[in-house]
Amino acid sequence: MGDVYVVLLEPKISGNIGAVARSMANFGFSNLVLVTPKCDVDDEARNRAKHAQKILNKAKIFKSADKIFSKFDTIIGTTGITGTDFNLIRSPLLMGDVAFKILSAKGSVALLFGPEDTGLSNEQLKNCDFVLSIPTHKDYPVMNLSHAVTVLLYELFRHESAQILRDKHKQSAPREKEVLFGVVDDLINQTNFKTEDERTTQKLIWKRFVGKAMLTRRETFGLIGFLKKLVKK
Amino acid sequence: MGDVYVVLLEPKISGNIGAVARSMANFGFSNLVLVTPKCDVDDEARNRAKHAQKILNKAKIFKSADKIFSKFDTIIGTTGITGTDFNLIRSPLLMGDVAFKILSAKGSVALLFGPEDTGLSNEQLKNCDFVLSIPTHKDYPVMNLSHAVTVLLYELFRHESAQILRDKHKQSAPREKEVLFGVVDDLINQTNFKTEDERTTQKLIWKRFVGKAMLTRRETFGLIGFLKKLVKK
Repeated sequence: MGDVYVVLLEPKISGNIGAVARSMANFGFSNLVLVTPKCDVDDEARNRAKHAQKILNKAKIFKSADKIFSKFDTIIGTTGITGTDFNLIRSPLLMGDVAFKILSAKGSVALLFGPEDTGLSNEQLKNCDFVLSIPTHKDYPVMNLSHAVTVLLYELFRHESAQILRDKHKQSAPREKEVLFGVVDDLINQTNFKTEDERTTQKLIWKRFVGKAMLTRRETFGLIGFLKKLVKK
Repeated sequence: MGDVYVVLLEPKISGNIGAVARSMANFGFSNLVLVTPKCDVDDEARNRAKHAQKILNKAKIFKSADKIFSKFDTIIGTTGITGTDFNLIRSPLLMGDVAFKILSAKGSVALLFGPEDTGLSNEQLKNCDFVLSIPTHKDYPVMNLSHAVTVLLYELFRHESAQILRDKHKQSAPREKEVLFGVVDDLINQTNFKTEDERTTQKLIWKRFVGKAMLTRRETFGLIGFLKKLVKK
Protein backbone atom coordinates (compact mmCIF):
# COMPACT_ATOMS: atom_id res chain seq x y z
CA MET A 1 0.00 0.00 0.00
CA GLY A 2 1.18 3.54 -0.70
CA ASP A 3 1.03 6.23 1.97
CA VAL A 4 -2.61 6.90 2.65
CA TYR A 5 -3.58 10.46 3.62
CA VAL A 6 -6.93 11.41 5.10
CA VAL A 7 -7.54 14.91 3.76
CA LEU A 8 -10.34 17.01 5.26
CA LEU A 9 -11.25 20.02 3.18
CA GLU A 10 -12.56 22.94 5.23
CA PRO A 11 -13.88 20.96 8.19
CA LYS A 12 -16.14 23.10 10.37
CA ILE A 13 -16.76 20.98 13.49
CA SER A 14 -13.69 20.34 15.62
CA GLY A 15 -15.26 17.26 17.23
CA ASN A 16 -15.30 15.60 13.82
CA ILE A 17 -11.56 16.16 13.42
CA GLY A 18 -10.96 14.40 16.74
CA ALA A 19 -13.32 11.56 15.87
CA VAL A 20 -11.56 11.11 12.53
CA ALA A 21 -8.17 10.95 14.29
CA ARG A 22 -9.44 8.25 16.65
CA SER A 23 -10.81 6.21 13.79
CA MET A 24 -7.50 6.53 11.93
CA ALA A 25 -5.66 5.15 14.97
CA ASN A 26 -8.21 2.33 15.25
CA PHE A 27 -7.31 1.22 11.75
CA GLY A 28 -3.59 1.96 11.84
CA PHE A 29 -3.48 5.13 9.72
CA SER A 30 -1.58 8.25 10.78
CA ASN A 31 -1.41 10.92 8.05
CA LEU A 32 -4.07 13.56 8.62
CA VAL A 33 -4.23 16.73 6.49
CA LEU A 34 -6.52 19.68 7.21
CA VAL A 35 -7.01 22.01 4.26
CA THR A 36 -8.04 25.54 5.24
CA PRO A 37 -9.94 24.28 8.31
CA LYS A 38 -12.81 26.48 9.53
CA CYS A 39 -12.30 25.44 13.15
CA ASP A 40 -9.41 24.89 15.55
CA VAL A 41 -8.03 21.65 16.89
CA ASP A 42 -9.52 22.53 20.27
CA ASP A 43 -10.48 20.72 23.47
CA GLU A 44 -13.48 19.12 21.81
CA ALA A 45 -11.24 17.66 19.08
CA ARG A 46 -8.75 16.49 21.72
CA ASN A 47 -11.52 14.91 23.76
CA ARG A 48 -13.04 13.02 20.82
CA ALA A 49 -9.62 11.80 19.64
CA LYS A 50 -9.09 9.96 22.96
CA HIS A 51 -5.85 7.93 22.60
CA ALA A 52 -5.09 9.31 19.14
CA GLN A 53 -3.56 12.64 20.25
CA LYS A 54 -0.38 11.87 18.31
CA ILE A 55 -2.30 12.02 15.05
CA LEU A 56 -3.67 15.47 15.91
CA ASN A 57 -0.17 16.62 16.95
CA LYS A 58 1.37 15.71 13.62
CA ALA A 59 -1.59 16.70 11.43
CA LYS A 60 -0.51 18.88 8.53
CA ILE A 61 -2.44 22.08 7.87
CA PHE A 62 -2.59 23.43 4.32
CA LYS A 63 -3.26 27.15 4.32
CA SER A 64 -4.46 27.14 0.73
CA ALA A 65 -6.58 24.68 -1.20
CA ASP A 66 -4.81 25.59 -4.45
CA LYS A 67 -2.31 22.81 -4.67
CA ILE A 68 -4.04 19.82 -3.09
CA PHE A 69 -4.76 18.27 -6.47
CA SER A 70 -1.08 18.24 -7.39
CA LYS A 71 0.27 17.16 -4.01
CA PHE A 72 -0.69 13.50 -4.20
CA ASP A 73 -0.05 10.74 -6.72
CA THR A 74 -3.67 9.67 -6.53
CA ILE A 75 -6.53 11.67 -5.13
CA ILE A 76 -9.86 10.04 -4.47
CA GLY A 77 -12.92 12.20 -3.98
CA THR A 78 -15.76 11.07 -1.76
CA THR A 79 -19.43 11.93 -2.00
CA GLY A 80 -22.72 10.97 -0.41
CA ILE A 81 -24.62 12.62 -3.25
CA THR A 82 -24.43 10.39 -6.29
CA GLY A 83 -25.99 11.05 -9.65
CA THR A 84 -27.29 8.53 -12.13
CA ASP A 85 -25.10 6.83 -14.70
CA PHE A 86 -25.57 9.81 -17.01
CA ASN A 87 -23.84 12.09 -14.51
CA LEU A 88 -20.12 11.88 -15.31
CA ILE A 89 -18.93 13.74 -12.23
CA ARG A 90 -20.92 11.91 -9.59
CA SER A 91 -20.69 8.35 -10.93
CA PRO A 92 -18.87 6.77 -8.03
CA LEU A 93 -17.08 3.51 -7.50
CA LEU A 94 -18.24 1.65 -4.41
CA MET A 95 -15.88 1.10 -1.54
CA GLY A 96 -16.10 -2.68 -1.67
CA ASP A 97 -15.13 -2.62 -5.34
CA VAL A 98 -12.16 -0.43 -4.89
CA ALA A 99 -10.38 -1.36 -1.68
CA PHE A 100 -7.88 -3.55 -3.49
CA LYS A 101 -7.27 -0.79 -6.03
CA ILE A 102 -6.31 1.60 -3.25
CA LEU A 103 -4.27 -1.03 -1.43
CA SER A 104 -2.26 -1.78 -4.55
CA ALA A 105 -1.52 1.88 -5.34
CA LYS A 106 2.02 3.18 -5.10
CA GLY A 107 3.06 6.60 -3.82
CA SER A 108 0.71 8.86 -1.93
CA VAL A 109 -3.03 8.27 -1.99
CA ALA A 110 -5.32 10.98 -0.64
CA LEU A 111 -8.85 10.24 0.50
CA LEU A 112 -10.49 13.63 0.15
CA PHE A 113 -13.55 14.59 2.21
CA GLY A 114 -15.49 17.82 1.72
CA PRO A 115 -16.97 20.17 4.35
CA GLU A 116 -19.65 18.70 6.61
CA ASP A 117 -22.52 20.74 5.18
CA THR A 118 -21.87 20.77 1.43
CA GLY A 119 -19.41 17.99 0.68
CA LEU A 120 -17.08 18.28 -2.29
CA SER A 121 -18.27 20.47 -5.15
CA ASN A 122 -18.59 19.25 -8.73
CA GLU A 123 -15.49 21.27 -9.58
CA GLN A 124 -13.49 19.58 -6.83
CA LEU A 125 -14.76 16.12 -7.73
CA LYS A 126 -13.78 16.69 -11.37
CA ASN A 127 -10.16 17.11 -10.31
CA CYS A 128 -10.07 13.81 -8.44
CA ASP A 129 -8.72 10.67 -10.11
CA PHE A 130 -11.94 8.94 -9.27
CA VAL A 131 -14.91 9.30 -6.97
CA LEU A 132 -15.89 6.95 -4.21
CA SER A 133 -19.17 6.55 -2.37
CA ILE A 134 -20.46 4.43 0.46
CA PRO A 135 -23.77 2.73 -0.36
CA THR A 136 -26.42 4.27 1.88
CA HIS A 137 -30.19 4.38 2.10
CA LYS A 138 -31.91 6.63 -0.41
CA ASP A 139 -33.96 8.37 2.29
CA TYR A 140 -30.89 9.71 4.08
CA PRO A 141 -27.72 9.14 2.09
CA VAL A 142 -25.38 11.68 3.70
CA MET A 143 -23.23 10.34 6.51
CA ASN A 144 -21.48 12.11 9.36
CA LEU A 145 -17.90 12.99 8.35
CA SER A 146 -16.13 10.79 10.90
CA HIS A 147 -18.55 7.92 10.17
CA ALA A 148 -17.69 8.08 6.47
CA VAL A 149 -13.96 8.14 7.23
CA THR A 150 -14.45 5.18 9.58
CA VAL A 151 -16.14 3.01 6.95
CA LEU A 152 -13.46 3.75 4.34
CA LEU A 153 -10.54 3.07 6.67
CA TYR A 154 -12.27 -0.06 7.99
CA GLU A 155 -12.53 -1.39 4.44
CA LEU A 156 -8.84 -0.75 3.81
CA PHE A 157 -7.78 -2.22 7.14
CA ARG A 158 -9.89 -5.33 7.02
CA HIS A 159 -8.58 -6.33 3.61
CA GLU A 160 -5.03 -6.07 4.95
CA SER A 161 -5.43 -7.21 8.49
CA ALA A 162 -8.42 -9.43 9.10
CA GLN A 163 -5.65 -12.01 8.93
CA ILE A 164 -4.15 -10.61 12.13
CA LEU A 165 -7.27 -11.30 14.15
CA ARG A 166 -7.67 -14.67 12.46
CA ASP A 167 -4.11 -15.55 13.48
CA LYS A 168 -4.94 -14.62 17.04
CA HIS A 169 -8.00 -16.90 17.10
CA LYS A 170 -6.72 -19.99 15.35
CA GLN A 171 -9.30 -22.25 13.80
CA SER A 172 -8.91 -25.89 14.73
CA ALA A 173 -6.53 -27.75 12.41
CA PRO A 174 -7.76 -30.67 10.22
CA ARG A 175 -5.89 -33.09 12.49
CA GLU A 176 -7.71 -31.74 15.54
CA LYS A 177 -11.07 -32.01 13.83
CA GLU A 178 -10.21 -35.58 12.81
CA VAL A 179 -9.74 -36.49 16.47
CA LEU A 180 -13.07 -34.84 17.26
CA PHE A 181 -14.89 -36.73 14.51
CA GLY A 182 -13.26 -39.97 15.68
CA VAL A 183 -14.77 -39.52 19.13
CA VAL A 184 -18.13 -38.53 17.61
CA ASP A 185 -18.05 -41.73 15.54
CA ASP A 186 -17.35 -43.82 18.64
CA LEU A 187 -20.23 -42.16 20.40
CA ILE A 188 -22.64 -42.65 17.49
CA ASN A 189 -21.63 -46.29 17.13
CA GLN A 190 -22.27 -46.88 20.83
CA THR A 191 -25.68 -45.26 20.58
CA ASN A 192 -28.82 -47.22 19.89
CA PHE A 193 -29.50 -46.24 16.28
CA LYS A 194 -31.50 -48.83 14.34
CA THR A 195 -30.02 -48.52 10.86
CA GLU A 196 -26.71 -47.64 9.26
CA ASP A 197 -28.59 -44.82 7.51
CA GLU A 198 -29.41 -43.18 10.80
CA ARG A 199 -25.78 -43.36 11.86
CA THR A 200 -24.65 -41.90 8.53
CA THR A 201 -27.11 -39.02 8.89
CA GLN A 202 -25.88 -38.32 12.42
CA LYS A 203 -22.30 -38.24 11.22
CA LEU A 204 -23.17 -35.75 8.50
CA ILE A 205 -25.03 -33.58 10.99
CA TRP A 206 -21.91 -33.46 13.16
CA LYS A 207 -19.71 -32.81 10.17
CA ARG A 208 -21.79 -29.76 9.29
CA PHE A 209 -22.26 -28.70 12.90
CA VAL A 210 -18.51 -28.54 13.42
CA GLY A 211 -17.80 -27.18 9.97
CA LYS A 212 -20.23 -24.27 10.11
CA ALA A 213 -19.29 -23.34 13.66
CA MET A 214 -15.65 -22.89 12.52
CA LEU A 215 -14.44 -23.89 15.95
CA THR A 216 -11.26 -22.55 17.49
CA ARG A 217 -8.67 -25.00 18.81
CA ARG A 218 -9.76 -24.26 22.35
CA GLU A 219 -13.39 -25.07 21.59
CA THR A 220 -12.39 -28.24 19.73
CA PHE A 221 -10.22 -29.49 22.60
CA GLY A 222 -13.04 -28.78 25.03
CA LEU A 223 -15.54 -30.73 22.94
CA ILE A 224 -13.18 -33.69 22.52
CA GLY A 225 -12.71 -33.88 26.28
CA PHE A 226 -16.45 -33.83 26.88
CA LEU A 227 -17.33 -36.43 24.25
CA LYS A 228 -14.55 -38.76 25.41
CA LYS A 229 -16.17 -38.78 28.84
CA LEU A 230 -19.48 -39.75 27.25
CA VAL A 231 -17.80 -42.57 25.31
CA LYS A 232 -16.35 -44.01 28.51
CA LYS A 233 -19.74 -44.20 30.19
CA MET B 1 -33.49 -10.44 7.10
CA GLY B 2 -35.16 -10.53 10.52
CA ASP B 3 -35.88 -7.36 12.47
CA VAL B 4 -32.54 -5.91 13.45
CA TYR B 5 -32.36 -4.01 16.75
CA VAL B 6 -29.49 -1.79 17.75
CA VAL B 7 -29.33 -2.19 21.53
CA LEU B 8 -27.17 0.22 23.55
CA LEU B 9 -26.54 -0.94 27.09
CA GLU B 10 -26.05 1.91 29.57
CA PRO B 11 -24.84 4.53 27.11
CA LYS B 12 -23.33 7.52 28.92
CA ILE B 13 -22.77 10.12 26.20
CA SER B 14 -25.94 11.50 24.63
CA GLY B 15 -24.10 12.64 21.49
CA ASN B 16 -23.29 9.00 20.77
CA ILE B 17 -26.97 8.07 20.87
CA GLY B 18 -27.72 10.75 18.29
CA ALA B 19 -24.79 9.71 16.09
CA VAL B 20 -25.96 6.09 16.26
CA ALA B 21 -29.48 7.14 15.19
CA ARG B 22 -28.08 9.04 12.20
CA SER B 23 -26.00 6.07 11.15
CA MET B 24 -29.01 3.78 11.46
CA ALA B 25 -30.99 6.05 9.12
CA ASN B 26 -28.04 6.15 6.70
CA PHE B 27 -28.22 2.38 6.38
CA GLY B 28 -31.99 1.96 6.56
CA PHE B 29 -32.38 0.63 10.10
CA SER B 30 -34.91 2.01 12.57
CA ASN B 31 -35.17 -0.05 15.79
CA LEU B 32 -33.14 1.55 18.55
CA VAL B 33 -33.25 0.25 22.13
CA LEU B 34 -31.64 2.01 25.10
CA VAL B 35 -31.17 -0.22 28.13
CA THR B 36 -30.93 1.70 31.43
CA PRO B 37 -29.28 4.69 29.72
CA LYS B 38 -27.04 6.87 31.91
CA CYS B 39 -27.86 10.02 29.94
CA ASP B 40 -30.91 11.70 28.41
CA VAL B 41 -31.87 12.00 24.77
CA ASP B 42 -31.05 15.70 25.00
CA ASP B 43 -30.24 18.53 22.58
CA GLU B 44 -26.78 17.12 21.89
CA ALA B 45 -28.34 13.79 20.85
CA ARG B 46 -30.93 15.60 18.71
CA ASN B 47 -28.22 17.70 17.08
CA ARG B 48 -26.00 14.74 16.23
CA ALA B 49 -28.95 12.72 14.87
CA LYS B 50 -29.61 15.40 12.22
CA HIS B 51 -32.35 14.02 9.91
CA ALA B 52 -32.87 10.87 11.99
CA GLN B 53 -35.10 12.42 14.68
CA LYS B 54 -37.78 9.82 14.00
CA ILE B 55 -35.48 7.06 15.22
CA LEU B 56 -34.90 8.90 18.49
CA ASN B 57 -38.64 9.53 18.86
CA LYS B 58 -39.52 5.87 18.60
CA ALA B 59 -36.50 4.51 20.51
CA LYS B 60 -37.53 2.03 23.21
CA ILE B 61 -36.14 2.45 26.68
CA PHE B 62 -35.71 -0.63 28.89
CA LYS B 63 -35.72 0.32 32.55
CA SER B 64 -34.07 -2.91 33.60
CA ALA B 65 -31.29 -4.94 32.02
CA ASP B 66 -32.71 -8.16 33.45
CA LYS B 67 -34.62 -9.44 30.51
CA ILE B 68 -32.65 -8.28 27.48
CA PHE B 69 -31.19 -11.73 26.92
CA SER B 70 -34.63 -13.28 26.63
CA LYS B 71 -36.25 -10.52 24.54
CA PHE B 72 -34.62 -11.35 21.21
CA ASP B 73 -34.39 -14.49 19.12
CA THR B 74 -30.71 -13.92 18.55
CA ILE B 75 -28.48 -11.62 20.51
CA ILE B 76 -25.05 -10.74 19.24
CA GLY B 77 -22.51 -9.24 21.60
CA THR B 78 -19.85 -6.85 20.36
CA THR B 79 -16.39 -6.24 21.76
CA GLY B 80 -13.25 -4.35 20.90
CA ILE B 81 -11.28 -6.36 23.43
CA THR B 82 -10.64 -9.80 22.02
CA GLY B 83 -8.77 -12.60 23.72
CA THR B 84 -6.69 -15.32 22.09
CA ASP B 85 -8.20 -18.53 20.80
CA PHE B 86 -7.92 -20.00 24.28
CA ASN B 87 -10.36 -17.40 25.63
CA LEU B 88 -13.82 -18.87 25.14
CA ILE B 89 -15.75 -15.72 25.99
CA ARG B 90 -13.87 -13.24 23.83
CA SER B 91 -13.27 -15.36 20.71
CA PRO B 92 -15.17 -13.27 18.23
CA LEU B 93 -16.41 -13.81 14.73
CA LEU B 94 -15.38 -11.08 12.32
CA MET B 95 -17.97 -8.86 10.75
CA GLY B 96 -17.08 -9.77 7.19
CA ASP B 97 -17.55 -13.47 8.01
CA VAL B 98 -20.88 -13.07 9.61
CA ALA B 99 -22.90 -10.51 7.67
CA PHE B 100 -24.69 -13.18 5.69
CA LYS B 101 -25.41 -15.11 8.87
CA ILE B 102 -27.17 -12.09 10.34
CA LEU B 103 -28.95 -11.29 7.09
CA SER B 104 -30.34 -14.82 6.88
CA ALA B 105 -31.59 -14.90 10.48
CA LYS B 106 -35.32 -15.02 11.17
CA GLY B 107 -37.11 -13.19 13.97
CA SER B 108 -35.48 -10.46 16.00
CA VAL B 109 -31.73 -9.98 15.98
CA ALA B 110 -30.17 -7.69 18.55
CA LEU B 111 -26.75 -6.12 18.06
CA LEU B 112 -25.72 -5.40 21.62
CA PHE B 113 -23.21 -2.68 22.44
CA GLY B 114 -21.82 -2.07 25.92
CA PRO B 115 -21.16 1.24 27.72
CA GLU B 116 -18.60 3.56 26.13
CA ASP B 117 -15.97 3.16 28.83
CA THR B 118 -16.07 -0.54 29.70
CA GLY B 119 -17.89 -2.32 26.88
CA LEU B 120 -19.79 -5.53 27.58
CA SER B 121 -18.60 -7.57 30.57
CA ASN B 122 -17.56 -11.22 30.31
CA GLU B 123 -20.81 -12.13 32.06
CA GLN B 124 -22.86 -10.23 29.47
CA LEU B 125 -20.87 -11.65 26.54
CA LYS B 126 -21.43 -15.18 27.87
CA ASN B 127 -25.16 -14.72 27.50
CA CYS B 128 -24.94 -13.68 23.87
CA ASP B 129 -25.46 -16.20 21.08
CA PHE B 130 -22.12 -15.21 19.66
CA VAL B 131 -19.64 -12.41 19.85
CA LEU B 132 -18.66 -10.11 17.04
CA SER B 133 -15.64 -7.86 16.65
CA ILE B 134 -14.41 -5.38 14.09
CA PRO B 135 -10.79 -5.96 13.13
CA THR B 136 -8.79 -2.98 14.41
CA HIS B 137 -5.16 -2.08 14.98
CA LYS B 138 -3.53 -3.70 18.01
CA ASP B 139 -2.21 -0.36 19.29
CA TYR B 140 -5.71 1.10 19.69
CA PRO B 141 -8.42 -1.49 19.20
CA VAL B 142 -11.35 0.21 20.91
CA MET B 143 -13.62 2.24 18.64
CA ASN B 144 -16.03 5.04 19.38
CA LEU B 145 -19.53 3.65 19.97
CA SER B 146 -21.22 5.27 16.99
CA HIS B 147 -18.26 4.38 14.75
CA ALA B 148 -18.60 0.70 15.71
CA VAL B 149 -22.36 0.78 15.06
CA THR B 150 -21.68 2.46 11.70
CA VAL B 151 -19.29 -0.24 10.51
CA LEU B 152 -21.66 -3.06 11.50
CA LEU B 153 -24.72 -1.50 9.86
CA TYR B 154 -22.67 -0.61 6.78
CA GLU B 155 -21.68 -4.26 6.42
CA LEU B 156 -25.30 -5.39 6.69
CA PHE B 157 -26.54 -2.72 4.31
CA ARG B 158 -23.89 -3.12 1.64
CA HIS B 159 -24.54 -6.84 1.35
CA GLU B 160 -28.21 -6.12 0.77
CA SER B 161 -28.14 -2.91 -1.13
CA ALA B 162 -24.90 -2.28 -2.99
CA GLN B 163 -27.12 -3.50 -5.81
CA ILE B 164 -29.28 -0.38 -5.48
CA LEU B 165 -26.39 1.93 -6.20
CA ARG B 166 -25.19 -0.35 -8.98
CA ASP B 167 -28.64 -0.20 -10.55
CA LYS B 168 -28.47 3.57 -10.44
CA HIS B 169 -25.11 3.63 -12.22
CA LYS B 170 -25.59 1.03 -14.89
CA GLN B 171 -22.49 -0.55 -16.31
CA SER B 172 -22.36 -0.57 -20.08
CA ALA B 173 -24.04 -3.62 -21.58
CA PRO B 174 -22.05 -6.18 -23.60
CA ARG B 175 -23.76 -4.90 -26.77
CA GLU B 176 -22.60 -1.36 -26.03
CA LYS B 177 -19.06 -2.49 -25.38
CA GLU B 178 -19.15 -4.44 -28.65
CA VAL B 179 -19.92 -1.22 -30.51
CA LEU B 180 -17.06 0.49 -28.69
CA PHE B 181 -14.59 -2.30 -29.55
CA GLY B 182 -15.79 -2.20 -33.15
CA VAL B 183 -14.84 1.47 -33.42
CA VAL B 184 -11.55 0.81 -31.62
CA ASP B 185 -10.78 -1.95 -34.16
CA ASP B 186 -11.50 0.41 -37.05
CA LEU B 187 -9.19 2.95 -35.52
CA ILE B 188 -6.40 0.46 -34.89
CA ASN B 189 -6.71 -0.91 -38.44
CA GLN B 190 -6.44 2.61 -39.87
CA THR B 191 -3.35 3.32 -37.81
CA ASN B 192 0.14 2.72 -39.08
CA PHE B 193 1.09 -0.41 -37.11
CA LYS B 194 3.73 -2.54 -38.79
CA THR B 195 2.69 -6.05 -37.80
CA GLU B 196 -0.50 -7.93 -37.00
CA ASP B 197 1.07 -8.63 -33.58
CA GLU B 198 1.17 -4.93 -32.77
CA ARG B 199 -2.47 -4.60 -33.72
CA THR B 200 -3.41 -7.62 -31.60
CA THR B 201 -1.56 -6.17 -28.63
CA GLN B 202 -3.32 -2.83 -29.02
CA LYS B 203 -6.69 -4.56 -29.13
CA LEU B 204 -5.91 -6.44 -25.95
CA ILE B 205 -4.80 -3.22 -24.25
CA TRP B 206 -8.15 -1.64 -25.12
CA LYS B 207 -10.01 -4.73 -24.00
CA ARG B 208 -8.38 -4.50 -20.58
CA PHE B 209 -8.59 -0.71 -20.46
CA VAL B 210 -12.34 -0.81 -20.95
CA GLY B 211 -12.80 -3.92 -18.83
CA LYS B 212 -10.97 -2.68 -15.77
CA ALA B 213 -12.51 0.77 -15.95
CA MET B 214 -15.98 -0.81 -15.71
CA LEU B 215 -17.46 2.03 -17.72
CA THR B 216 -21.00 3.27 -17.28
CA ARG B 217 -23.27 3.53 -20.31
CA ARG B 218 -22.77 7.29 -20.36
CA GLU B 219 -19.00 6.97 -20.44
CA THR B 220 -19.20 4.28 -23.12
CA PHE B 221 -21.47 6.37 -25.36
CA GLY B 222 -19.14 9.34 -24.91
CA LEU B 223 -16.09 7.30 -25.90
CA ILE B 224 -17.84 5.81 -28.94
CA GLY B 225 -18.74 9.30 -30.16
CA PHE B 226 -15.18 10.51 -29.76
CA LEU B 227 -13.52 7.52 -31.43
CA LYS B 228 -15.97 7.62 -34.33
CA LYS B 229 -14.82 11.19 -35.00
CA LEU B 230 -11.23 9.98 -35.08
CA VAL B 231 -12.13 7.16 -37.50
CA LYS B 232 -13.72 9.65 -39.91
CA LYS B 233 -10.59 11.81 -40.04
